[in-house]
Amino acid sequence: MFTLEKKDEKTFARAGTVHLYHGDVQTPVFMPVGTNGPVKTFLPYEIKEINAQIMLSNAYHLYLRPGLEVIEEMGGLHSFAGWDRNILTDSGGFQIFSLSSLNKIKNDGIEFRSHIDGSKHFLSAENVVDVQRILGSDIMMVLDHCTPPQITHNEAAKAVDTTARWAARSREHYAKVINPEKQKQFGIVQGNFFKDLREKSAKETIAIDFDGYAIGGLSVGESKDVFADILSYTTPLLPENKPRYLMGVGTPEDIFTGVTAGVDMFDCVFPTRIARNGSVFTNRGRINLRNEKYRLDHSPMDPECDCYMCKNFSKAYIRHLLKAGEISALRMTSYHNIYYMKKLMEKIRTSIFDGTFVEYRNDFLRKYKNETL
Amino acid sequence: MFTLEKKDEKTFARAGTVHLYHGDVQTPVFMPVGTNGPVKTFLPYEIKEINAQIMLSNAYHLYLRPGLEVIEEMGGLHSFAGWDRNILTDSGGFQIFSLSSLNKIKNDGIEFRSHIDGSKHFLSAENVVDVQRILGSDIMMVLDHCTPPQITHNEAAKAVDTTARWAARSREHYAKVINPEKQKQFGIVQGNFFKDLREKSAKETIAIDFDGYAIGGLSVGESKDVFADILSYTTPLLPENKPRYLMGVGTPEDIFTGVTAGVDMFDCVFPTRIARNGSVFTNRGRINLRNEKYRLDHSPMDPECDCYMCKNFSKAYIRHLLKAGEISALRMTSYHNIYYMKKLMEKIRTSIFDGTFVEYRNDFLRKYKNETL
Repeated sequence: MFTLEKKDEKTFARAGTVHLYHGDVQTPVFMPVGTNGPVKTFLPYEIKEINAQIMLSNAYHLYLRPGLEVIEEMGGLHSFAGWDRNILTDSGGFQIFSLSSLNKIKNDGIEFRSHIDGSKHFLSAENVVDVQRILGSDIMMVLDHCTPPQITHNEAAKAVDTTARWAARSREHYAKVINPEKQKQFGIVQGNFFKDLREKSAKETIAIDFDGYAIGGLSVGESKDVFADILSYTTPLLPENKPRYLMGVGTPEDIFTGVTAGVDMFDCVFPTRIARNGSVFTNRGRINLRNEKYRLDHSPMDPECDCYMCKNFSKAYIRHLLKAGEISALRMTSYHNIYYMKKLMEKIRTSIFDGTFVEYRNDFLRKYKNETL
Repeated sequence: MFTLEKKDEKTFARAGTVHLYHGDVQTPVFMPVGTNGPVKTFLPYEIKEINAQIMLSNAYHLYLRPGLEVIEEMGGLHSFAGWDRNILTDSGGFQIFSLSSLNKIKNDGIEFRSHIDGSKHFLSAENVVDVQRILGSDIMMVLDHCTPPQITHNEAAKAVDTTARWAARSREHYAKVINPEKQKQFGIVQGNFFKDLREKSAKETIAIDFDGYAIGGLSVGESKDVFADILSYTTPLLPENKPRYLMGVGTPEDIFTGVTAGVDMFDCVFPTRIARNGSVFTNRGRINLRNEKYRLDHSPMDPECDCYMCKNFSKAYIRHLLKAGEISALRMTSYHNIYYMKKLMEKIRTSIFDGTFVEYRNDFLRKYKNETL
């Protein structure tokens, strides 16, 4: 399922290909997020135009709305959303913890209330597999117990135990009901910010033998140092011959940290979320187009970018449209940011093959300064 | 500037071509509205894809935001907005009356406050010509005094006098400062719902000799009967050899009324505004995709439509996206509605050439029933 094509000599960075039912995915890869189906503001042909080979959707959201009855009737998520490339879906665990007003960990799953209408639901290790079977996910994630910063070692250890128990049950259920040629399943390593627990969780998860391994519970509010420390400790614990996925990351800076540690796959709403606020990536850092200083600026969002938006619209025009609340502006900034992430990942991959990853990374980060409004 | 190509034998309907600086426009035509530059949710290439030859922008909005300094610096509206086909701009009069919190008719123009920041402004017959010169409008409109329903004959007569006085001054100023090869100017016939005043206004406006004539102050809340009565009375008063433009209309039904009366040009925010509310045109009438009954509907918005959205997405999917508040849904419904209007106008034009306009109209209106939620 995974071909490791090149290992960097100075870091843990690596380039490879994940072979999935809807095509190959070249890594390191950033997966754009389409929570409810579409990447926000996009139509599927635009995601293809940018040449993304995989996107992520949220099982939690789709399970609640439109609901599985609709998606099953419509032939699964690929058909429903008009997307014929790969889809990874999360299990919903993280969303339950972050969005649901009330949630209760039970022995065999999580009871929670919908953030949409307050209705009561229960997701178990087994039924998240069934949910993702119906969605038709190319990669499905197990149900895990994700924890916030500043909990005790004891609490974190309990969550690791829960995660391991659910992982084993998820894998068993997967073996019974899923066609493994069509749908792959990833386990998730937890352990909060405790290295012994990260190690324990990694061992327990690897022992179950998943198709790939994710690192969960990072980038949830901890400092950049703690993030980098735990990430660079945990990632090399994972098997070399399987894809490694850092959930919910991120920014260009964090992606360099991840690639350096040996991560292959990333996803985050960050590029599209900031775009809807007028913030766009450039090779000199992030800028916010609502800034007064762009009022008469003829230049494109990113002079080094060759995306359609940068070739056709000035900063001054996009700023005007943002100020006027025009949806067209959100399309321009979102498209550019997703295009930018795709190009960034391609450049990272090329630099790994060329043996110049460290130079490319250091040069990039030296130039990259985020603008504040 | 206008070639009359075909006159219907049973009605006042006509087909022609308006020759403008940024290309020919075949009539009858519906002009999509891009208030602040873009047609809402669109990028310019999509408007081209639909093959629209002209769009409308609002001088009032652009004058207030981003302001003329920005648009002048950016080389005019075509260059600013990345649109190289025709643009018609209104004078701002209608918006001042409908949006501005405070407005005062003076002898030589209108004093008003911005609906954005409350700042005070003054637009005169002359400076709306200057505003539209800077915008670079292919067709500019004169400043007029638009009136609401239920005013007295005396009040309406006063507004007609004001409109005539401003029209004469606008035309004089146009002759001094505008290159007539690049920018055309239309006069506006007012007169509220009084036929004698409509006739007086038409005569006075025609006497000034504009490049085309608009009918203003209709579709502002009057009954359909009054609308049709005043329109079919006024339109034939206008010269046959000049384009006739019915401002702010409209719906497919009203467009048939207009074409029947001899109107060549239409504009309205209606198709895009209802689209953002989930309402779309079909050849059987308007439907609202938020309706529960479309929850499991595999069929496209309009089974008779061949637009990209109808070829790729089901009612069920678009309904889901509308419910989830996804911008992508607004793109789907807006695109379809503008595409639908374009195809409708093409079919009307063809039927005029074929001598089957009345049959086409009657057949269309018989089938067309609007769904209520």
